[in-house]
Amino acid sequence: MREIFDAELKQLGDDLVAMSRRVEHAITAAGEALARQDLTLAESVIADDLAIDALERDLDERCVLLLAQQQPVATDLRVVVSALRMSATLERMGDLARHVAQVARRSYPHPAVDPALAAVFAEMNEAAVRVAAKTTEVLHSHDLEVAAAILAEDDRLDHLHEETFRVLLGSGWTGTPQQTVDVTLLGRYYERFGDHAVSIAKRITFLVTGDFAGDPSAAH
Amino acid sequence: MREIFDAELKQLGDDLVAMSRRVEHAITAAGEALARQDLTLAESVIADDLAIDALERDLDERCVLLLAQQQPVATDLRVVVSALRMSATLERMGDLARHVAQVARRSYPHPAVDPALAAVFAEMNEAAVRVAAKTTEVLHSHDLEVAAAILAEDDRLDHLHEETFRVLLGSGWTGTPQQTVDVTLLGRYYERFGDHAVSIAKRITFLVTGDFAGDPSAAH
Repeated sequence: MREIFDAELKQLGDDLVAMSRRVEHAITAAGEALARQDLTLAESVIADDLAIDALERDLDERCVLLLAQQQPVATDLRVVVSALRMSATLERMGDLARHVAQVARRSYPHPAVDPALAAVFAEMNEAAVRVAAKTTEVLHSHDLEVAAAILAEDDRLDHLHEETFRVLLGSGWTGTPQQTVDVTLLGRYYERFGDHAVSIAKRITFLVTGDFAGDPSAAH
Repeated sequence: MREIFDAELKQLGDDLVAMSRRVEHAITAAGEALARQDLTLAESVIADDLAIDALERDLDERCVLLLAQQQPVATDLRVVVSALRMSATLERMGDLARHVAQVARRSYPHPAVDPALAAVFAEMNEAAVRVAAKTTEVLHSHDLEVAAAILAEDDRLDHLHEETFRVLLGSGWTGTPQQTVDVTLLGRYYERFGDHAVSIAKRITFLVTGDFAGDPSAAH
């Protein structure tokens, strides 16, 4: 019985890693679509988000079955409940990658990001891609150093997000209202993407240490 | 044993209702703070959000205990898992009310919303307050007509959100970049607030009918 349960728990972990890989792929492609006005790539990110949503539903359904059939307690129970929460978080990260792609699609064939901010958004996307890669890694390894690195990358994202406001609200900004709207929304999407990764890093830390290093739900 | 369990399930439901009442209060006050440049009110919304976060933690902890001690199956299990999810959603709605209050605080003593959009945001806030009140109601009554009414109010919020873009991107818009940023963020917060209420309405519908009327997680 315990062996079956362990195999099922391992499968849950593997599924979270697989979901996270898709999110990583989505944010990478969304950033490229944004930087290169690549409509086809933007549309593929938007279409592929359905697959992430489907993975979440499957994973959740299996968590509920596992709770019903195996009646886990203690740490096992926390692993399953955390999987439920982390799948919702990954699904949301997928949505945010889709939103980035939707901004790229809406502004096509024009760049959504004004040249004055292209470098900042290139950096934001790189930071978001690193955040996503480390999220996959921490889900796989449960390595607390990787969890800490996610928090550092999120600080970088927050800093870049503030930088977008400095440009938007500085005297040199001559963008149109549409450009101001797009930069505001994109900045918000990237900031939230980082927050969600932080919530996963904190949940893994909690599972490993049994200690709430701050409340994961406070990461907004 | 069953009686204790029923009492605990009822308590979970009551706690969700209590959380939702606080969210209702928060969005009402945030909208007033925004409309009247009321700094004290904005700060009280921001401070009170900690209480909503605390309610979520308590509720989640009790859900996990309930799963461990009562080992619910079938519908009971779904009720507990849904409570876990809905508390996270309500916590997020509280955050969004806080974000509205933060915009009001940041722009104080100036109005965050340009006069050209004051009426639209007054309507958005009214719709959001109705959404929040109906969320409390549906959590209390599990009445599917109330769930349907939430979807209708959310359509209204989406329509008003589109209206903000029509104004921002129209030829008559003369707002500063800061005003454009604030309207973009506020519109997004209200839109997301409605989406979260829809997700609760769909979860309750699922619990009542056993039928996924669309996937709640798709409501973004």
